Amino acid sequence: MIRAGIIGATGYAGAELVRLLTAHKDTEIIWYGSRSYIDQKYADIYRNMFKIVEGSCLDDNLEELARQADIIFTATPQGYLASVISDRILAQTKIVDLSADFRLRDVAVYERWYGITHASPQYLAEAVYGLCEVNRDKIRTTRLVANPGCYTTCSILTAYPLVKAGLIDPDTLIIDAKSGTSGAGRGAKTANLFCEVNENIKAYGVACHRHTPEIEEQLGYAAGRRITVSFTPHLVPMNRGILVTAYASLVRKGDGSLPGAEEIRAAYDACYQEETFIRVLPEGICPETRWVEGSNYVDVNVISDERTGRVVMMGALDNLVKGAAGQAVQNMNLLFGLPETEGLMMVPVFP
Amino acid sequence: MIRAGIIGATGYAGAELVRLLTAHKDTEIIWYGSRSYIDQKYADIYRNMFKIVEGSCLDDNLEELARQADIIFTATPQGYLASVISDRILAQTKIVDLSADFRLRDVAVYERWYGITHASPQYLAEAVYGLCEVNRDKIRTTRLVANPGCYTTCSILTAYPLVKAGLIDPDTLIIDAKSGTSGAGRGAKTANLFCEVNENIKAYGVACHRHTPEIEEQLGYAAGRRITVSFTPHLVPMNRGILVTAYASLVRKGDGSLPGAEEIRAAYDACYQEETFIRVLPEGICPETRWVEGSNYVDVNVISDERTGRVVMMGALDNLVKGAAGQAVQNMNLLFGLPETEGLMMVPVFP
Amino acid sequence: MIRAGIIGATGYAGAELVRLLTAHKDTEIIWYGSRSYIDQKYADIYRNMFKIVEGSCLDDNLEELARQADIIFTATPQGYLASVISDRILAQTKIVDLSADFRLRDVAVYERWYGITHASPQYLAEAVYGLCEVNRDKIRTTRLVANPGCYTTCSILTAYPLVKAGLIDPDTLIIDAKSGTSGAGRGAKTANLFCEVNENIKAYGVACHRHTPEIEEQLGYAAGRRITVSFTPHLVPMNRGILVTAYASLVRKGDGSLPGAEEIRAAYDACYQEETFIRVLPEGICPETRWVEGSNYVDVNVISDERTGRVVMMGALDNLVKGAAGQAVQNMNLLFGLPETEGLMMVPVFP
Amino acid sequence: MIRAGIIGATGYAGAELVRLLTAHKDTEIIWYGSRSYIDQKYADIYRNMFKIVEGSCLDDNLEELARQADIIFTATPQGYLASVISDRILAQTKIVDLSADFRLRDVAVYERWYGITHASPQYLAEAVYGLCEVNRDKIRTTRLVANPGCYTTCSILTAYPLVKAGLIDPDTLIIDAKSGTSGAGRGAKTANLFCEVNENIKAYGVACHRHTPEIEEQLGYAAGRRITVSFTPHLVPMNRGILVTAYASLVRKGDGSLPGAEEIRAAYDACYQEETFIRVLPEGICPETRWVEGSNYVDVNVISDERTGRVVMMGALDNLVKGAAGQAVQNMNLLFGLPETEGLMMVPVFP
Repeated sequence: MIRAGIIGATGYAGAELVRLLTAHKDTEIIWYGSRSYIDQKYADIYRNMFKIVEGSCLDDNLEELARQADIIFTATPQGYLASVISDRILAQTKIVDLSADFRLRDVAVYERWYGITHASPQYLAEAVYGLCEVNRDKIRTTRLVANPGCYTTCSILTAYPLVKAGLIDPDTLIIDAKSGTSGAGRGAKTANLFCEVNENIKAYGVACHRHTPEIEEQLGYAAGRRITVSFTPHLVPMNRGILVTAYASLVRKGDGSLPGAEEIRAAYDACYQEETFIRVLPEGICPETRWVEGSNYVDVNVISDERTGRVVMMGALDNLVKGAAGQAVQNMNLLFGLPETEGLMMVPVFP
Repeated sequence: MIRAGIIGATGYAGAELVRLLTAHKDTEIIWYGSRSYIDQKYADIYRNMFKIVEGSCLDDNLEELARQADIIFTATPQGYLASVISDRILAQTKIVDLSADFRLRDVAVYERWYGITHASPQYLAEAVYGLCEVNRDKIRTTRLVANPGCYTTCSILTAYPLVKAGLIDPDTLIIDAKSGTSGAGRGAKTANLFCEVNENIKAYGVACHRHTPEIEEQLGYAAGRRITVSFTPHLVPMNRGILVTAYASLVRKGDGSLPGAEEIRAAYDACYQEETFIRVLPEGICPETRWVEGSNYVDVNVISDERTGRVVMMGALDNLVKGAAGQAVQNMNLLFGLPETEGLMMVPVFP
Repeated sequence: MIRAGIIGATGYAGAELVRLLTAHKDTEIIWYGSRSYIDQKYADIYRNMFKIVEGSCLDDNLEELARQADIIFTATPQGYLASVISDRILAQTKIVDLSADFRLRDVAVYERWYGITHASPQYLAEAVYGLCEVNRDKIRTTRLVANPGCYTTCSILTAYPLVKAGLIDPDTLIIDAKSGTSGAGRGAKTANLFCEVNENIKAYGVACHRHTPEIEEQLGYAAGRRITVSFTPHLVPMNRGILVTAYASLVRKGDGSLPGAEEIRAAYDACYQEETFIRVLPEGICPETRWVEGSNYVDVNVISDERTGRVVMMGALDNLVKGAAGQAVQNMNLLFGLPETEGLMMVPVFP
Repeated sequence: MIRAGIIGATGYAGAELVRLLTAHKDTEIIWYGSRSYIDQKYADIYRNMFKIVEGSCLDDNLEELARQADIIFTATPQGYLASVISDRILAQTKIVDLSADFRLRDVAVYERWYGITHASPQYLAEAVYGLCEVNRDKIRTTRLVANPGCYTTCSILTAYPLVKAGLIDPDTLIIDAKSGTSGAGRGAKTANLFCEVNENIKAYGVACHRHTPEIEEQLGYAAGRRITVSFTPHLVPMNRGILVTAYASLVRKGDGSLPGAEEIRAAYDACYQEETFIRVLPEGICPETRWVEGSNYVDVNVISDERTGRVVMMGALDNLVKGAAGQAVQNMNLLFGLPETEGLMMVPVFP
């Protein structure tokens, strides 16, 4: 059994990790870390876990946890892991970090967008960006996985095939993303009260959301050069789910014609036909968050618009599963040589 | 592998059966019956099943299905199964009926509340009411299980211990039930449109809901006599979940005193301490539907009110799982000698 | 113009007062009291008021406000008004108190249910319980109106006619109430976050909710004696609305027969046929919260159940309007000799 | 009193017209047209109108209605008005058409996007596009107003100032719109059931939604040339509200610099500072649908992004009010020389 510890086990992403790891046949959770609820029974915080989880919450002692655990998941605020990580810890355990601390290769970019000083830039080179479908091989051999952000996972996987195939101009890429409210976390803020979110939709973080540089860096690798994108997140009155609607101009061929629908579709099939968790939908069918809820799937599709010379790329995932805990487990499976889908073949729950 | 057929596979209960049976390691679905969608791919109706279910929808041919299947689930309107069931069919296969056709022992009661003539009353004696926690042993040996209604399952399990222990007067029992909208089915009715249900709560079927006689019959067995109860369902703007709030007067002892909180609690423990799927919550904690969503659990609790001499009993379940498909699978497990929890240990999904 | 001040103007009830008074042709708001947002523009807190309300929030200075205002609305936590009210204040202004401080005649009952010492019991005798349809005449001449609670208004108006007519046994009264989440206030609590409330229903305050003694006192006046009732509130995933489902045993006549449906209906008509804001629905139609949203209406109806000898009484209102701010304005209209419906004839908003 | 008739009075837009006209002091509704509910009391269909509206539904007899009414609102499917309009009708009454029949000047464009033959193209030249803030003067003198679509109103008003000022390249305009579900109408379709819409977000009509040519035509007038835009609508699990997030590239000046934030803001102020119903929000504040719900306001704002050289323009309105019935009443006010805001100064309802 893999002995797993979770720091930040009482946030929504942490709780989803508990749900997934509890059902994972090769894993045992040995540490429910939660600074806010120390010594309280975990099932008193998340009553869905009553008679399922017996443990109580522990403090965030990464040193001690590293001694006991084969793997640590940090579902913590930005800056936490960078402030406590050390060679000794990495020598004893593997880490999947659900925060942004090790996602951006360039420390200056991190510090600019997050507004904090990076306490451990020396581990940035070692960290692997844990987008399994793209970095599978590198993940297998690392000690430190930077689990991608929820918006980022959805945005990258939605646009990746056309960027990689050079069929769109990546600098025209505009990503309009919509997220369920669990993405806003479990902190007690007025803005996230039921009555404030319900019967409402709004954009936020316009032109300054922190997932932007992460998308630009990763899609830049696919493009083979630096790119700049527009990214706008929105808050939707639902619990789970992210939908990305991404727009980009098609690159005209030498003869001035646009790439055809078949060529565009072929780019998606080329990237994803072997992927269990990425479902390229039939032609003309738009992804919807309800069809992936509770599962690790990402549904993607693309519609070409000759009138405008643009494509509309769409992707949907469950922000707590493929956008957080599910992808973290997928990374764990890779780290430990397990089948990549172990514990992740949940059928989406609808309605 | 158990070969299972579903009649009514594209309703919400039928779709939940598909979800559960797809994940059940001993079962294979061989028939997706759906009169409305014949020859259409099942995954085109329920896109959560894309790349998971390959089959297409078939007509409702129970005769043919009986030849091919080890078990048939009928998630059909009232009257369907009674109109087609036969000795030959029952000789070839087992049936778990999710409709009300074989739930009520007294055909006159059925005909009065449902307003239709029962086409096959001769099978009523053989049918076993499939409330597993109560009728476990009888279920194991029958060919025909009448799977309980969603409201009924929740109502009975909530009140059962105190009725059985004689601690409450069953004729004072008032059951105020609240259900998510999936209980209303997938039919295209104006009343169930998003804008009609959202931001609203209403009672319906007041003093005439068809689950009433079912509750009365089953709790009557526990009471050892005929009883009459008040039952009022309400429609709540959420997808899944039933909450029952049940009121009854405590029976005073010979000395005029009321049963104490400990005695009341002990009655619940006596009934349910061995039950995997019934969780008696800690004292003072009210059941909530969110904590059981997506799972086969029923959470129950009771609060005693000395001021009024009454108890308030509460129960919560997922109407599509323990209230329909999950209980049907639990019945299947009993019918085939499998562990009763096989394929049903899903951790509740929250949020 | 009536000069009105609001203490607690940034809670949901306070904000609804602002909405209603802004549209009230005889009123001018001169004081937006909000301890939490002093000196901030009101329209920066409630952006629906942008370009409508120009004022900024002020501290809770009741002394000063009494000098300036013709009427003060206190939409404040329990205990506030009792701690600051004085003869001098009452000599200068009228007060409509939306808290519970002056609702209960018996100070011991208040202190027991609210767990706080009443700081000004000397004003209890003078305060009038502001349920306009019942206490209209007394309200006109008082200086201090205790505006009823939201659950209480709905519960009392739903059961009042049958209690008053002696057609039901008030000690059998069981009130199962369901409320939208704005009733929980705008405080930043984890339990009221979108993801905690959405897709969930729960009971709370079982056998101990503070609106219970208020209902008992007021319905006791109608019954002509002390009564004890069961009251259970539930939280529903919607913004506004309260639905009450109330159960009681009919009182048999001398000949053992039950009161007939016509007699029962006549009791409602007798009480409410002259009332603008209480709509007795056609026979068989259940009240729904959506039909009163945004308005000052209460929809009520009753269904008689011969099988059980009980009636099911139902009522629906908007908790922020008739359950709080609307009723407060109705009380203001009475206090100032305006038409009772002034500024309150809003058509319910649907969907 | 203006005598008003409504064809299509039982759809959501028609019902909102009833709500607004009922509260409009200069108007009397004389005809509740509804083919589906002929002879049924209007208040039996929309119970919010109980004791407010006494009338019953009538058939769709435009000829007869034209004789009786001063103004007719047609809230009908595409093609209806074009199939029945005539000189005689227009000689007797004014018409505000909420369908698309007379919105597009070019009949070929109409027929291509709507897939139906236009039965009365001869009235296209006379019809005035009823976007009051843009076409105010023309509306006053016409007999036939083409009331704009909901998405269109929001999209145009959001982008209009920058298109008109030439600060953005209109061919780079990408409009990502999100709508509440009342925009999908009251038809009983499976796709609009509560359980299908709730907990979901999806795009639909990608690259083919019928509001696209309407946006292009109207913004083309502002640009002074033909333009082509990308428009993608999304369905959001809420009753009311449209949010538009629109992206466009800024036009560089002669010196290569981008227009500054002040210049961009000034363009909005120039267009809208005199407009009652358009609120340009303070800098940095994003429009949200909750702040305009139930009202005729449109909230707009713009954020400039130097990194990408683009602006993000945002607008929010209530699709049933400013997006349909409210704008129709605003048009009626203009047609009859009433103050433009008459009956439309409703304060937004929150929460």
